[in-house]
Amino acid sequence: MNDKEIREIINDLTLEEKIKMIHGAGLFRTEGVERKKIPPLRFSDGPLGVRNEFPDASWVPYGYTDDFVSYLPSGTALASTWNPELSYRCGQVLGEEARGRGKDMILGPGINIMRSPLCGRNFEYMSEDPFLVSKICVPYIRGVQENDVSVCVKHFAVNNQETERLEVNVEVSERALHEIYFPAFKAAVEEGDAYAFMCAYNRWEGLHCSANKRLLTQILKSDWHFDGVVVSDWGAVHDSKGAAEAGLDIDMNVTYDFDNYCFARPLMEEVKSGHVDEKIIDDKVARILGLMDKIHIFSSERKEGCFNTPEHQKAALDIARESVILLKNQNCSGKKILPLNKKEIKTIAVIGENADILQSHAGGSAEIKSLYEITPLLGITMAAGGNISVKYERGYSPDSAKADDLRASALKLAQECDAVIYVGGCAHYNPKFQMGTNAIGVSKDDEPCRIDSEGFDRDDLTLPYGQDVLLCELLKLRPDTVTVIFSGNAVDMSRWINSTAALIQTTYNGMEGGRALAEVIFGKVNPSGKLPYTILKQLADCPAHSAGDFPGDVTGDVKTVHYREGIFVGYRYFETFRKESEFCFGHGLSYTDFEYSDLNVIQMDSQRIKAVLNVKNTGARYGKETVQIYLSPVNPKTERSIKELKAFKKIELEAGETKRVVFEIHKKDFARFDENRQCWITDSGKYEIMAGSSVKDIRLKSSVELSEGFYEK
Amino acid sequence: MNDKEIREIINDLTLEEKIKMIHGAGLFRTEGVERKKIPPLRFSDGPLGVRNEFPDASWVPYGYTDDFVSYLPSGTALASTWNPELSYRCGQVLGEEARGRGKDMILGPGINIMRSPLCGRNFEYMSEDPFLVSKICVPYIRGVQENDVSVCVKHFAVNNQETERLEVNVEVSERALHEIYFPAFKAAVEEGDAYAFMCAYNRWEGLHCSANKRLLTQILKSDWHFDGVVVSDWGAVHDSKGAAEAGLDIDMNVTYDFDNYCFARPLMEEVKSGHVDEKIIDDKVARILGLMDKIHIFSSERKEGCFNTPEHQKAALDIARESVILLKNQNCSGKKILPLNKKEIKTIAVIGENADILQSHAGGSAEIKSLYEITPLLGITMAAGGNISVKYERGYSPDSAKADDLRASALKLAQECDAVIYVGGCAHYNPKFQMGTNAIGVSKDDEPCRIDSEGFDRDDLTLPYGQDVLLCELLKLRPDTVTVIFSGNAVDMSRWINSTAALIQTTYNGMEGGRALAEVIFGKVNPSGKLPYTILKQLADCPAHSAGDFPGDVTGDVKTVHYREGIFVGYRYFETFRKESEFCFGHGLSYTDFEYSDLNVIQMDSQRIKAVLNVKNTGARYGKETVQIYLSPVNPKTERSIKELKAFKKIELEAGETKRVVFEIHKKDFARFDENRQCWITDSGKYEIMAGSSVKDIRLKSSVELSEGFYEK
Repeated sequence: MNDKEIREIINDLTLEEKIKMIHGAGLFRTEGVERKKIPPLRFSDGPLGVRNEFPDASWVPYGYTDDFVSYLPSGTALASTWNPELSYRCGQVLGEEARGRGKDMILGPGINIMRSPLCGRNFEYMSEDPFLVSKICVPYIRGVQENDVSVCVKHFAVNNQETERLEVNVEVSERALHEIYFPAFKAAVEEGDAYAFMCAYNRWEGLHCSANKRLLTQILKSDWHFDGVVVSDWGAVHDSKGAAEAGLDIDMNVTYDFDNYCFARPLMEEVKSGHVDEKIIDDKVARILGLMDKIHIFSSERKEGCFNTPEHQKAALDIARESVILLKNQNCSGKKILPLNKKEIKTIAVIGENADILQSHAGGSAEIKSLYEITPLLGITMAAGGNISVKYERGYSPDSAKADDLRASALKLAQECDAVIYVGGCAHYNPKFQMGTNAIGVSKDDEPCRIDSEGFDRDDLTLPYGQDVLLCELLKLRPDTVTVIFSGNAVDMSRWINSTAALIQTTYNGMEGGRALAEVIFGKVNPSGKLPYTILKQLADCPAHSAGDFPGDVTGDVKTVHYREGIFVGYRYFETFRKESEFCFGHGLSYTDFEYSDLNVIQMDSQRIKAVLNVKNTGARYGKETVQIYLSPVNPKTERSIKELKAFKKIELEAGETKRVVFEIHKKDFARFDENRQCWITDSGKYEIMAGSSVKDIRLKSSVELSEGFYEK
Repeated sequence: MNDKEIREIINDLTLEEKIKMIHGAGLFRTEGVERKKIPPLRFSDGPLGVRNEFPDASWVPYGYTDDFVSYLPSGTALASTWNPELSYRCGQVLGEEARGRGKDMILGPGINIMRSPLCGRNFEYMSEDPFLVSKICVPYIRGVQENDVSVCVKHFAVNNQETERLEVNVEVSERALHEIYFPAFKAAVEEGDAYAFMCAYNRWEGLHCSANKRLLTQILKSDWHFDGVVVSDWGAVHDSKGAAEAGLDIDMNVTYDFDNYCFARPLMEEVKSGHVDEKIIDDKVARILGLMDKIHIFSSERKEGCFNTPEHQKAALDIARESVILLKNQNCSGKKILPLNKKEIKTIAVIGENADILQSHAGGSAEIKSLYEITPLLGITMAAGGNISVKYERGYSPDSAKADDLRASALKLAQECDAVIYVGGCAHYNPKFQMGTNAIGVSKDDEPCRIDSEGFDRDDLTLPYGQDVLLCELLKLRPDTVTVIFSGNAVDMSRWINSTAALIQTTYNGMEGGRALAEVIFGKVNPSGKLPYTILKQLADCPAHSAGDFPGDVTGDVKTVHYREGIFVGYRYFETFRKESEFCFGHGLSYTDFEYSDLNVIQMDSQRIKAVLNVKNTGARYGKETVQIYLSPVNPKTERSIKELKAFKKIELEAGETKRVVFEIHKKDFARFDENRQCWITDSGKYEIMAGSSVKDIRLKSSVELSEGFYEK
């Protein structure tokens, strides 16, 4: 459908009909125009799979039996793989499932930056680093959209906390926006060709994102040339005229009063009374028709999708396998604890409620009605095989009255078994903290919030339900315990980290997550996940909490959060200010070892540099390594982060094998955003090019001299 | 472990220790002898997968979360594939899962002959034909036992009904035993090398099978050289001395009073008092130790198994795909209804409660706690894709008060949609009929029993819950309806069969059953199942009910069932006495056509005949055909079945492809069992060799002249 055809359709639509296309007529659909054979646009949450079916006007799901789907690894899990190919597969699966379920748009990916570990939606997001987010989200978007389904990249922009998310105003520097908070969104448009964006709930520059013309029209649609559709977050619109003129295209909400949505009758009246130009409505409809055309809604050859296929389950498994991060694997009684050797074990004690929780069904809009979900306990039992007896003790639970008994039973079991696996951490769900239907989290208690869920931020980094006490006692008794931490972001490990010799970080990684975890524990899979965020020693070390504030000043009428840390988010802060972290960004061990050598940096032309190095698998088994390239300005004249990730590659190596790894780096990758000149500048001078296995574990360095360069924003 | 080593162990065991090894010390285990490092023997139901975990002394399962498993296609589904390779894979999966769950013996396969369609356990069994059962059960047994797990072939013998199964005495001719009821059990020993048998509940020759020395010792252990273990059905033992001396090896029961099991304290006292020779106990222990050795219980190299693997799910799918039987596919408005063409459909009405029932969790001891189960409705929705809207109406339900409303809604929906799929039939479960913990079915109502479940026989062939009324009205309204019947055996189709143009028979075919069914409906899979039983026009046509009786004379103290139909079970009766059936044994259509030609019969030597023919796929698409060879005596002097299945081969053919199919037939295959001479006799004379696509659809014939031959029983 070309512009002329779209224009012709619009010319034939009445204002009433156009209005029907730009607001929710059900919780997850707009109204179509039957007369013109324009169908409704059908949405579905969310990034981890296609959500179950809801009636038009109720948040109580139908309870159908044919809307089970595949539960996919979360954004954090995807980023932990550092494998764009897996992200592409994840997108393909999600797109196929969304189309198979008859959807037009899937409300994801969620690509906000992990500013503070406390943000309840971090598990949906990908990283603290904009480059990693970009490289993971772009193939994901392509994978989805190949299936004649649109993504809805969310939440644009600076929606980095859940606390007071509907009202809080974000104060953030232009530079931090362009260097930290915008790049992945920009990549989603320029590299991913995302057909739709979701505007965030919060305010920026005093205005709600839904009514923020600079954000939606100037930056997104004009600067970035986004020709797609901007959908509101559900209930994010408060001003018909403001949002319509700001560049919002579709107004969705959480209430059932569809005719009174801002873009329904109220906006129609604004147009009829001449307060809003009808051309503004036409532009929205044109964008919607354009999107419908891109996803082949009008074509008889539209892809039909599918869901719950074995291939989808395999994709979930492959992603989960690479998402598991081995943080620590030290000697205990003369040898490394992991992987567990089944031949030496007759009994295994599995301890921890997280081993036995289904995660798919909770977490807010990312909840999934999964066809099945393999918990860590089931996965471990499956992998252990019939010659090993797996015994389970909960160890802790939200019911604190049971704590002593549960702990005692767990410690008893641990003493009786040949091996001990502790699976603790956070979860999406605690009955005391629930999502309200108005998109605001509701706490029923004054207990600290320690769940990973939309609508909430955690109150602190402490493990919930007295796990620290249990873990300390357990590790004293059994220093050979394999400790597995399940969470969407960092937890406080300080009380027991020095006692644990084998530590695995995992997250909400889909229906096959428990199988993947077990395969890593028993060595069927060699772990290759790397941290996409920093694990802090303590919350106070987090720049958002020390330099900036979190969740901001939110008690009064005017609620504000100051991103005073500027560009120093995550490892940029820890590296530049030489703060110690518990585990650094990019860290993740393998059961084999990799040797880096022969870094060569070649200036290809005035703009392009090639960095080449060799990586050898010096251990005894096949493995995968993610080689990370950080750029570092030497004696910069302006404030700079001492390291910035600008390239990475995940390679696979047989035992003994060496591979040559080549990176192309652009001169623009060295640039900083200059607020005064409103452009990117690569300052002249010397820069180090670092090849590392993590941001701290830099194995090789070289350097280049660059002349000054300027680049458009 | 050789005999001498076993003897040495036994010599070192006390009577008390030996007794511990031959009776249940938990509902699903014996007691081991720790002093001698002899572990308990761990059993699990059942043929469709590994059952969930029970405490030693309770029929209320633990409710663990790590005992979900794969739900495999039932025996009837397996036999419907006519594919021994799939049966082998099914056995492999079951064996791997049983071992993965730490089991030593899986209580299956169930291979009793389907004597009457009413038998509630028919769905667990395989066929009305002993040859087909043999060819399906033997590879299954091998597949299981390759995994260091024993089968327990059940129920030996003549356990062909559930009504009064604990007490009913079966009166059956020697000839029928040898020609119909024994062959598959004999093949299980001689070809399958089954390590264990389960004796049946019922009586034969007045004695319970558990105490029937002729059955267990003479026939099984002596004539057939069975060196394995005979386990009682749970609660089948009533006489310590009788059963011990008859040849039963392990006494299992349904009660928790383990010390008072017949083979516990009571048998010990019989030995101590000299009424039972301790050597008899020693033989049982020797057999048990022998079995333990075969399944490598004492070896550090014992296979460890696995469960819930993607490969297992794939096997379940592959089996289910070939188990679906296309009974009828006629023209409607000028073209065949099946497969449905998705391009021509925007909406599908799925009607029938069976489309939306989970089957895995019920049916008696065959119940499975499945990791997931794809219902027909979910399968159809998945396969339909996002361009088709699938709408569902229940149509009927066990609650008769709702019948009119449900029917009206279903008929309304059927009129509104482009295609209609009816999924009806029977199910395992109706709350009014439940298994008691004493292994006896309990009815809470005087409603006729129409469920497929252990503990019950159906009262008639009528479809439950008024489905006939609904189907008749539906087919009148929509003659293009695809009718799917879900059942363990024949249902009465008389009221609507002439109105239906597209009819599919399916059964309890595992966790992937709904996907497989949908793939057949939409033509992704070309159906290749064939009926392993006859679908009668009416119950009175069944030889067990007309010539013999069913369920027998069971109201008095002495309960007897007379198998007066003798060898004329299933198609043998219908063919020999030229009775019409609704659908004959071996029937099953394809979406392509097969042409048979050039049957050549070659006498290889005095004992062996080769039959060779060509089969061509004359249609437009790939398909599979099962070529069936029936032998037919010409003018026999003694009573004979006019057709007997003695060979079959399932072949796959591309469109246009021709394959040469070769069968080897032995002279013994023409024999009848002679009761006077107690041997098999091939009478001299002429025999026809028939190649057919079903028992009625004989495509080619040839003949041979044979001299008289005698064969040991």
